[in-house]
Amino acid sequence: MTMTGTRRQEALPRQESLRLLGTVSMGRLVFSHLALPAIRPVNHIVDGDQVIIRAHMGTTIDIAVGDNAGMVVAYEADLIDPDTHLGWSVIIVGRASRISEGAEADRFRRLLQPWVAGASADDVIAIRADLVDGFRLVA
Amino acid sequence: MTMTGTRRQEALPRQESLRLLGTVSMGRLVFSHLALPAIRPVNHIVDGDQVIIRAHMGTTIDIAVGDNAGMVVAYEADLIDPDTHLGWSVIIVGRASRISEGAEADRFRRLLQPWVAGASADDVIAIRADLVDGFRLVA
Repeated sequence: MTMTGTRRQEALPRQESLRLLGTVSMGRLVFSHLALPAIRPVNHIVDGDQVIIRAHMGTTIDIAVGDNAGMVVAYEADLIDPDTHLGWSVIIVGRASRISEGAEADRFRRLLQPWVAGASADDVIAIRADLVDGFRLVA
Repeated sequence: MTMTGTRRQEALPRQESLRLLGTVSMGRLVFSHLALPAIRPVNHIVDGDQVIIRAHMGTTIDIAVGDNAGMVVAYEADLIDPDTHLGWSVIIVGRASRISEGAEADRFRRLLQPWVAGASADDVIAIRADLVDGFRLVA
């Protein structure tokens, strides 16, 4: 049985939320695939007002974003203690787009390594933090 | 910089995926809200072929599921080491429905405490594991 619900949820300001997102290396991309809700854990970096992930070409993420330029996705990361359930969660919602070529793509490829081996070619995907919703769970 | 991508992704059988889901106390519910992708971290239990969560009445989760009986949602939990990026992730997709009253609702309320304080009234929400997609990240 988990602990009883004595925690409160406190909203976090946008900049603090983006800062926290940048302190962890992984989160979950939420998108639509074949008209069903889809979610995949991935690793990320935060660059200004966008979250950068990488996806091997031909994977579900890559196809979903590539076939729907400007598709609105969500991205969530959290650091919540599994025992006390204290911590934080940050959710961003915004348009996702491929950045496959150019100096910016090269820079992100240097900063962020995909964590799963696959075909050598991959896409860099940028998610604009249009909406930012962060909260802290406090005792 | 995160570690380079030398991990492989290995698919897990359905029953092993559901078993792993039951070994952790929290995950993330993925649904649609105001036609946008939404995700919320929550705590859960696994009961047979369904995942049970609780939501305070009037919250985004409660409204989304209550206003769309049989709405298809996704639920994801994982245990991935933030340094090595080894671990597992399980995703289920299926219909969500409120179980507000009756012996089953009472049983789930005893087994699962909501982790955030709120209005006393709340709904028990059951998600049918129609699709189960689990994988392990191995070195």
